[in-house]
Amino acid sequence: MGLGTVGGGVALALTDHANSIQRKTGFSVNLRHVLVRDSEKTRDPAPPEGVLTTNPEDILADPHVQIVVETMGGDHPAGEYLQRALDAGKHVVTANKEVMSRRGPDLMALAQKKQVNLLFEASAGGGIPIVGCLMSQLLANDIRSIRSIINGTTNYILTQMAWHQASFADALAEAQTRGYAEADPTNDIEGIDAAYKLSVLGSLAFHRRIPHHAIHTEGISQLGPEDFRYASELGYAIKSLAIAVVQSNGLVQARVHPALVPENHLLAKVDGVYNAVEVTGDLCGQIILHGQGAGREATTSAVMGDILSIVRTMGSANVPPPLPALDVNGDDTDSAVCPIDELSSAYYIRLTCADQAGVLAQVAQILGDGNISIATVIQKDTDPGSGTAQLVITTYPAREADVQFALAAVARLGVVVGVNNLIRIEE
Amino acid sequence: MGLGTVGGGVALALTDHANSIQRKTGFSVNLRHVLVRDSEKTRDPAPPEGVLTTNPEDILADPHVQIVVETMGGDHPAGEYLQRALDAGKHVVTANKEVMSRRGPDLMALAQKKQVNLLFEASAGGGIPIVGCLMSQLLANDIRSIRSIINGTTNYILTQMAWHQASFADALAEAQTRGYAEADPTNDIEGIDAAYKLSVLGSLAFHRRIPHHAIHTEGISQLGPEDFRYASELGYAIKSLAIAVVQSNGLVQARVHPALVPENHLLAKVDGVYNAVEVTGDLCGQIILHGQGAGREATTSAVMGDILSIVRTMGSANVPPPLPALDVNGDDTDSAVCPIDELSSAYYIRLTCADQAGVLAQVAQILGDGNISIATVIQKDTDPGSGTAQLVITTYPAREADVQFALAAVARLGVVVGVNNLIRIEE
Ligand SMILES: NC(=O)c1ccc[n+]([C@@H]2O[C@H](COP(=O)([O-])OP(=O)(O)OC[C@H]3O[C@@H](n4cnc5c(N)ncnc54)[C@H](OP(=O)(O)O)[C@@H]3O)[C@@H](O)[C@H]2O)c1
Ligand SMILES: NC(=O)c1ccc[n+]([C@@H]2O[C@H](COP(=O)([O-])OP(=O)(O)OC[C@H]3O[C@@H](n4cnc5c(N)ncnc54)[C@H](OP(=O)(O)O)[C@@H]3O)[C@@H](O)[C@H]2O)c1
Repeated sequence: MGLGTVGGGVALALTDHANSIQRKTGFSVNLRHVLVRDSEKTRDPAPPEGVLTTNPEDILADPHVQIVVETMGGDHPAGEYLQRALDAGKHVVTANKEVMSRRGPDLMALAQKKQVNLLFEASAGGGIPIVGCLMSQLLANDIRSIRSIINGTTNYILTQMAWHQASFADALAEAQTRGYAEADPTNDIEGIDAAYKLSVLGSLAFHRRIPHHAIHTEGISQLGPEDFRYASELGYAIKSLAIAVVQSNGLVQARVHPALVPENHLLAKVDGVYNAVEVTGDLCGQIILHGQGAGREATTSAVMGDILSIVRTMGSANVPPPLPALDVNGDDTDSAVCPIDELSSAYYIRLTCADQAGVLAQVAQILGDGNISIATVIQKDTDPGSGTAQLVITTYPAREADVQFALAAVARLGVVVGVNNLIRIEE
Repeated sequence: MGLGTVGGGVALALTDHANSIQRKTGFSVNLRHVLVRDSEKTRDPAPPEGVLTTNPEDILADPHVQIVVETMGGDHPAGEYLQRALDAGKHVVTANKEVMSRRGPDLMALAQKKQVNLLFEASAGGGIPIVGCLMSQLLANDIRSIRSIINGTTNYILTQMAWHQASFADALAEAQTRGYAEADPTNDIEGIDAAYKLSVLGSLAFHRRIPHHAIHTEGISQLGPEDFRYASELGYAIKSLAIAVVQSNGLVQARVHPALVPENHLLAKVDGVYNAVEVTGDLCGQIILHGQGAGREATTSAVMGDILSIVRTMGSANVPPPLPALDVNGDDTDSAVCPIDELSSAYYIRLTCADQAGVLAQVAQILGDGNISIATVIQKDTDPGSGTAQLVITTYPAREADVQFALAAVARLGVVVGVNNLIRIEE
């Protein structure tokens, strides 16, 4: 079976695993072309003789290529390549969360029209088999929610901050030194990467478009070591969660942000670069998948799994099974996602205040006026130098819009030096 | 698409979900027959008019039945029914761990010969999608080990013993009252149920027969509340684990028994009736799947997922993909599993001894002679009445055969009243 890969990394693993494909499916796979930017670069392991190319046409126009594997990343030109491959009747395997988030439903519709496979296990959750589970094993369920830790870089940074009381900057620098964060870490630490992945998972789970730009996204750079200390006193860990929940009105709440998670919840125990996805369905109840969300080998596991699925299918029938239906024709598809303002959540609020009597009364007055009930208050870390103290308040569930409005008023109080952090609490 | 079910429970759920099958696959399923023992019994929800039958021929000989779903349990006659269904070219979905453990490789070979699907997601792990993951998403991996909690009844009992210092008998009685244990709990508490499931998972993971009778199996009735107390002092939980590991000599160690698990390991945090499966592969690394291992709804999730997979496949091609190859022709297939004697493990040993000086020296002498190094010793719970004390010893990794031999000698010591427990430690 002829195979072309767009992007170098995983292709080399394919060579290593050619034997195992043969053994596990009974069919042999012939790696014909590997598209790279620079065909002169020394690569380890070295690619087989003659497969490297810098011309995408070598793959897209080769009738002997039946499967195109894409691991190059980015929307452009990867998206166009994938569209052309599908259009030419080739099966596609991709690890590209951005393409699947931006064009997934359209590409899936095209694959269905052309009766070819489009598989993308590695695009969300890395080596965790969540994409296939949503498409297949859990398909009978009406999925109610996804709560996940799907960015290993942020989870590594947050784990360092929690364990070593490190500052965000120090933890980021360490992550960069160890190769867990890129030189430009924006996509990871601002939640953009997680939003792409949540968009992919949410679309599969809820059978409708969850556009990444409709996902409320907050990064982690605002967190300080004291937040981890206070959260721990209250019995919580702090994790960056990617959450999508079907509300009672049928709309989906989709958001990526730091959250307080009860210490005894399994998501609180996902440490370092590990990822985890919790899925709740009407039949299966709550399922948690935990594993490596990134890395060359875990990605290879997912990409190779997809290739094996296609090879197994091709062996006995040339027309593969259709993908589960996606409502690609939904009229105003963005409206399936509701704004963060309508969220109902408990909150953790950290303020720097003047260290004087009556401050709490003023803050409590404003929250009360906004229909926000206080659950706990901790006053801490009095600083005689500046005459300030830290005021940490947790609330009972309240409307996001009310909380945002009240906090703007709190910030204007003379006794409040600053609103340092507002973190949602996930029970 | 015509469907017959052997066994009543899940069939009713199918009726409830007919709409969702249509919506998710584009094909409608027609439930033609449901085989039961007693067609007069009142059932809730009531089955559709005219589908109940007590005659298996109604299903097996009906050419309009394309998929046979079996949820009746037991090897006989379920196994014969499934074989006949496959022989007749019908697709099969089963929840039956015993049949899949005893006849799985043969039935899979038959399905492959007949080019039909044989899916069995519900047979191990209930609603946890582990069977499909091993067959598909993780197929690229060379699986190195499976460590799992796959019997909800025992895990519920052990959780009660740990949390409430309950005796085994009391915890079992409570599990029975709550419907988590059957009137005859033997299969669950003796590890037989878990051995069937481990046999199913191990065969898929390692691509060879792991016969359930070759799995070393120990129950949990030997455990006392004091074991949980001592284990906790040492930093461990006690769980009944089902483990299969490929050793360096290529043989598989497969065993079901209580084990000490470090408290900070995720498997130690699997509570109550929940199940979890940890899979380690050469590419994916360590993956943990956690969820409901039993119950009507979770089982329905798995069975329905299998039906949807088949229905989706049938829509576009009448010949479904082959199953991943199993070495069904391996010559002496049992020899793939090695005896427990060859296990190397750390151990927890609890003895009741005379409360007098020199006892530890005598015990330590025997262990040392057997090449067993002691890691920790706790002497506890002196009982002035009987003049005895509890001696709890943990060892460094040693050979199982050496430990069993040494313990027999320890039991013969005059100062030793009894060897209460030997529990393996899983690090
Ligand atoms: N790494 C992970 O942990 C992981 C996990 C899950 C998913 N993914 C996804 O996998 C994809 C790649 O990630 P990666 O870490 O493997 O990236 P990478 O190491 O940068 O590899 C990208 C490969 O694509 C080639 N390439 C890039 N742009 C190209 C262009 N315009 N034309 C031709 N070739 C081009 C590069 O060629 P040269 O070698 O010549 O530069 C390189 O071989 C992304 O979609 C990423 O989101 C990665
Ligand atoms: N329940 C779970 O949590 C769970 C989870 C995973 C897998 N499973 C598997 O699912 C299977 C069934 O479990 P279950 O709990 O649903 O059992 P169940 O409640 O006893 O249901 C068995 C059904 O099969 C019918 N049946 C039994 N023997 C029969 C025979 N000889 N001829 C005709 N019909 C017969 C029964 O008919 P009547 O109604 O007339 O008695 C009943 O409808 C087993 O293989 C089990 O291991 C169960």
